[in-house]
Amino acid sequence: MPRSQRRRSALTHPDAAEIDLLDVLHALADPTRMTIVRTLRAEPERACGTFPVDVAPSTLTHHFRVLREAGVIHQREDGNRRWTALRLADLDGRFPGLLDSILDAYETNAGAVAS
Amino acid sequence: MPRSQRRRSALTHPDAAEIDLLDVLHALADPTRMTIVRTLRAEPERACGTFPVDVAPSTLTHHFRVLREAGVIHQREDGNRRWTALRLADLDGRFPGLLDSILDAYETNAGAVAS
Repeated sequence: MPRSQRRRSALTHPDAAEIDLLDVLHALADPTRMTIVRTLRAEPERACGTFPVDVAPSTLTHHFRVLREAGVIHQREDGNRRWTALRLADLDGRFPGLLDSILDAYETNAGAVAS
Repeated sequence: MPRSQRRRSALTHPDAAEIDLLDVLHALADPTRMTIVRTLRAEPERACGTFPVDVAPSTLTHHFRVLREAGVIHQREDGNRRWTALRLADLDGRFPGLLDSILDAYETNAGAVAS
């Protein structure tokens, strides 16, 4: 199977009703992944190479996979680009207000301690 | 140094102002640790052997340490017993309403999927 098809077939996403809170908490408990989510809250969809994070591509791919498998982000292929979006409606439908509570707490956190 | 003193010296707790959101999210992202926290929300302080969790003592000690070092729980020695309490005031002072939001979301979660 060509590499591009293997990559495409790896883009699995849980249904909204299957999003698990502990997976979401785990996905958010990392500074790079938190930066990805905060960036997406400000902008609906971004190409994968455009996030303001300073990690190796393979590490970034890992972080995207954790977020995707937890149901936090949706990714789609478009030719040679992979686009990433926040599943805000799905998350809010499942856990109303929770993502905003966590992101707001993180802003408080970032203002009080170096992070 | 006697074993009891070594154990006692290991009970370090972060100051309330140093509680880090990502550490808290990581600490809560586990079913055993979530059960400990939910149990403590219903009861101010419990002896360590009395939590409704089915894990080996060494595993439980690990989970308590993760929660303690994240600032989620406080532990104290009293003779041969170790007592555990939720740092609800410290957490609410640092991240108002967040713990309740997460625990409420977990109730929703538990009602919708097996967890």
